[in-house]
Amino acid sequence: MKTVKTIEAMRRLVKAARSRGKSIGFVPTMGALHIGHISLIKAAAKKTDFVVVSIFVNPTQFGPTEDFGKYPRPLKADLEICRKAGVDAVFVPAAKEMYGEGKLTWVNVEKLGEPLCGEFRPGHFRGVATVCAKLFNIVMPDIAFFGQKDAQQAVIIKRMVVDLNMPLKIVVCPTVREPDGLAVSSRNQYLSEKERKYAAYLYKSLQKCRQMVAGGVRDSSKIRSQMRRILNNVPSIKIEYISIADAESLEPVKRLGGRVLAAVAVKIGTTRLIDNVLLDAGGK
Amino acid sequence: MKTVKTIEAMRRLVKAARSRGKSIGFVPTMGALHIGHISLIKAAAKKTDFVVVSIFVNPTQFGPTEDFGKYPRPLKADLEICRKAGVDAVFVPAAKEMYGEGKLTWVNVEKLGEPLCGEFRPGHFRGVATVCAKLFNIVMPDIAFFGQKDAQQAVIIKRMVVDLNMPLKIVVCPTVREPDGLAVSSRNQYLSEKERKYAAYLYKSLQKCRQMVAGGVRDSSKIRSQMRRILNNVPSIKIEYISIADAESLEPVKRLGGRVLAAVAVKIGTTRLIDNVLLDAGGK
Repeated sequence: MKTVKTIEAMRRLVKAARSRGKSIGFVPTMGALHIGHISLIKAAAKKTDFVVVSIFVNPTQFGPTEDFGKYPRPLKADLEICRKAGVDAVFVPAAKEMYGEGKLTWVNVEKLGEPLCGEFRPGHFRGVATVCAKLFNIVMPDIAFFGQKDAQQAVIIKRMVVDLNMPLKIVVCPTVREPDGLAVSSRNQYLSEKERKYAAYLYKSLQKCRQMVAGGVRDSSKIRSQMRRILNNVPSIKIEYISIADAESLEPVKRLGGRVLAAVAVKIGTTRLIDNVLLDAGGK
Repeated sequence: MKTVKTIEAMRRLVKAARSRGKSIGFVPTMGALHIGHISLIKAAAKKTDFVVVSIFVNPTQFGPTEDFGKYPRPLKADLEICRKAGVDAVFVPAAKEMYGEGKLTWVNVEKLGEPLCGEFRPGHFRGVATVCAKLFNIVMPDIAFFGQKDAQQAVIIKRMVVDLNMPLKIVVCPTVREPDGLAVSSRNQYLSEKERKYAAYLYKSLQKCRQMVAGGVRDSSKIRSQMRRILNNVPSIKIEYISIADAESLEPVKRLGGRVLAAVAVKIGTTRLIDNVLLDAGGK
């Protein structure tokens, strides 16, 4: 496994792999790797010949009051995880390497970045789209892999790739969960023991949604009020949003039909957690 | 010479050329080709092995009151010019092929798109940057060629390529001029015989600027007032701006130093014309 810090070295590695006829798979991450990331790496190794992981805690997707400073950066452990998972190359640029020339240019996906997390993290998805555009242009993968856990991010990146005719495919992999249902996330390590137990109720609320849809309920507000009841009963949880939206446009639906995204965001103490499920509510 | 209308066919042609070891040169145009475009094609043919020209009157860079509808589209003549100039492939997509999936995603280069033409054409450079990003992703050239005539566009596209780490180089070629100094432009054909004569004064005003700088004048307002005097003496000319700006940041300078861009924009009747010269005003 090669670990490189410069854009030029990264380009060289990919070029060499491609000249040997290999297809390129790419897993962009912010490090603090966990079994969710490993599942993306495994998917990449299955579908492509040469797997690149990037580890970059991107400053432009954090708000001024967010956890950029304290975001975990266990680089040694991350590299060990990559090595064991069979990654071919890890790209670990410094912020100066990525933004040394300044950052006047932004890629913005209108509308899709506004609801859900966009309301609570202004500028976040502009930062995500821009850094992904940069990373895609550096790594030039055939396929890039994202997790369903960050559902809105996945929708936005897919849209950006289509709209800008970027020459790659996006594959979205299922959310990996702890035994009690909690979606695996680098931010789970912020939770105290008590908070960790409470956090399982995010998925419980989403399961309630799934059950109600399976039982034939199509009224969004009815479902959401049941979900809200579950989350409001948990100490220390502060709900940011409970949304049922069209899975592509991310516009909220009143009456469920077709593919919908049920998504929740909460704060437990100072830790922000999100989760979602994709549901097929059948013909509209 | 191949002429293709679909993104897929364009990608196939480039891929085939690249697999034969050829480097790709790209000249994006809105058609109505003239000797300015031909000079770009010649530059591309000199520096690369396989020259692609795109002809696409991009709707998203025209304002609602601008000349999108009447912009000349002499496709047959354009293709003949390309053929004679030795172009390898012409990409002529319909608007639906370029924007069929919608256009939620925008590439915006902040600051650089605000002054000069940006003030008079809001949204123009966002449209230009976005369509160039799309075309670069479709054609995947090694080098793309732009004219110095559209100086602000060239600065913005160069910046976008650097900021987003796009894997290509931008080459900016000198403005091609008529014998009386008028910069060649597809929009010159809008001018009446009289207006055509008046139009030569744009370059006369820029030459005045050049002379003053050569003569040691460094006070921007002094130079601009001389330029204004020249243009104000011409019937039917309405000045939009006369600017002397830093050649990279495009910020107006009070005292000239280093590389500066002297740029003018006027309306003659209903026709909007722009021109500029790059000057080296020496150590600041």
